[in-house]
Amino acid sequence: MKSIAIGIDIGGTNTVFSCVDVNGKSYCNGNIPTQTRERFEDYISDLCGAIELAIENVNEDLKVIGVGIGAPSGNFHTGAIENAANLRWKGLLEITRLVNERMNVPVKLTNDANAAALGERIFGGAKDMADYMVVTLGTGLGSGIIVNGDLLYGHDGFAAEVGHIIVRPEGRECGCGRRGCLETYVSATGVKRTAYKFLAKNLAQSVLRDIPFNDLTAKKVADAANQGDEIAIDVFNYTGKMLGEALANVASVTSPKAIFFFGGLAKAGDLLFKPVQEAMEKNILFLYKDKISLLPSELGDDAAVLGASALIWNDQLSS
Amino acid sequence: MKSIAIGIDIGGTNTVFSCVDVNGKSYCNGNIPTQTRERFEDYISDLCGAIELAIENVNEDLKVIGVGIGAPSGNFHTGAIENAANLRWKGLLEITRLVNERMNVPVKLTNDANAAALGERIFGGAKDMADYMVVTLGTGLGSGIIVNGDLLYGHDGFAAEVGHIIVRPEGRECGCGRRGCLETYVSATGVKRTAYKFLAKNLAQSVLRDIPFNDLTAKKVADAANQGDEIAIDVFNYTGKMLGEALANVASVTSPKAIFFFGGLAKAGDLLFKPVQEAMEKNILFLYKDKISLLPSELGDDAAVLGASALIWNDQLSS
Repeated sequence: MKSIAIGIDIGGTNTVFSCVDVNGKSYCNGNIPTQTRERFEDYISDLCGAIELAIENVNEDLKVIGVGIGAPSGNFHTGAIENAANLRWKGLLEITRLVNERMNVPVKLTNDANAAALGERIFGGAKDMADYMVVTLGTGLGSGIIVNGDLLYGHDGFAAEVGHIIVRPEGRECGCGRRGCLETYVSATGVKRTAYKFLAKNLAQSVLRDIPFNDLTAKKVADAANQGDEIAIDVFNYTGKMLGEALANVASVTSPKAIFFFGGLAKAGDLLFKPVQEAMEKNILFLYKDKISLLPSELGDDAAVLGASALIWNDQLSS
Repeated sequence: MKSIAIGIDIGGTNTVFSCVDVNGKSYCNGNIPTQTRERFEDYISDLCGAIELAIENVNEDLKVIGVGIGAPSGNFHTGAIENAANLRWKGLLEITRLVNERMNVPVKLTNDANAAALGERIFGGAKDMADYMVVTLGTGLGSGIIVNGDLLYGHDGFAAEVGHIIVRPEGRECGCGRRGCLETYVSATGVKRTAYKFLAKNLAQSVLRDIPFNDLTAKKVADAANQGDEIAIDVFNYTGKMLGEALANVASVTSPKAIFFFGGLAKAGDLLFKPVQEAMEKNILFLYKDKISLLPSELGDDAAVLGASALIWNDQLSS
């Protein structure tokens, strides 16, 4: 009998799951659309049905020891998804209670960035670390922080929103209703906004001048930079500088041993991380100088479901 | 036999100790000058001698269960004072080893702000809290952060230097060698600097115009503000706004249930804390709005030694 934990990653469009052993090996996986059902209960019923069917089809005896769920606005303390901006169901969605009633195993919930942080500890590059941070660079900027070997949840379960540190008072408008949040500068969207700012400000020729805002992507800016496009290179230098300065400040709060980067924008590699490293070291308090490693996440494309399953494996390994 | 923990607070001028029971009652106390001895070992010997003598003179059987030490640059992980700027002895001072060899009980070390944070939990207003922060407002700005019920030390033992978050790039010169650190604005020294800035900028009459920089104190600015002095009131509004904005950002990292204030400048009361509260709530992410209490520390003038003894009592109570 093989012990597995089920990892579930709930996105706005698709919900993905995987049945993972303690070494991160997946025995089965699958996905269902997230928002086709009117009632949240029916969505959960579909999801559990799909998982049960996938497990039945495996030619091996699997023992499910728990279910870990990563979801935007997922609150570890309450076990509920709370007022998620990108889901059709409003208010408190008691997902851990519903899944537990159906599957009769421990169920744990947290947000996607926290799940990724824990995944790095169980399956990735942070195996021996008790204090580190994971930054996810996608449409926005998410973060999960591990201190004293545990996720930093804060008193309400909602700590570690590094993307919403205000780095420029009265700066760029943010989806959260305020201005100047880090993620308005450092994210795929932030890179697009910076590209347009620099196209307005400077006169240099650039391939980006032929791309309308709605067609522009961070990937296209990265490609242009790698071709030597001056404006595009400036965009990444600026983005990296903003992130490095912010990380220097976060270090004064949590003093991490390493910061791992994950997500689409992280694929820009040195283009982004060289200026991040420079700006962080230039702005950091002497106590932390040359101590913090900036590293790519060692989790692959399965990071979200691996991280979700790590919510269960972490408890097993530390008990 | 009464169990006591010894709390030691090492300042640049004096070293104070107190023998404290689990309720914070002191059975004896005393102090010695910190820096009259050339060798660190001799200073420690004098200190232990003074403590032993004080305990002998108590008319009650006392059992010493441990020694907690709060010191600037005290590192919990290594048990050493590391490169303290305000002490005559340089390099690593292995204080916990030396005191343990002499007194044969567990010895713990941390910095003064961390000790104050733990003291608030054992003896003060944070008895039921697992996630909160203490801010000490003196010559500088210190901080101790409790998360998941434990002090946040970071990977190197030096986390929670909130006073050295850069809040204004290229801002005021700081003793740490950089510019724009929070404590250059929010501290007794910061208040003086802001007063002089506003005296330069504005034309309003002010009693502060008769006080040379070297004679000015935060207390004099507070007294003037309480007398209705317009410049002095502006100084506290500015100081409070800077602190409130910074705390809103720190909340996005640690999401504390409460923030306690301690130290000389905290005595300014509403003059400072009304603008802090306003600026924090105005700038905070919606997730944390109206959730964080700003509170005065419930520890009195003994906070430093009480906090140091809490290093020992906290272990006892949580084991």
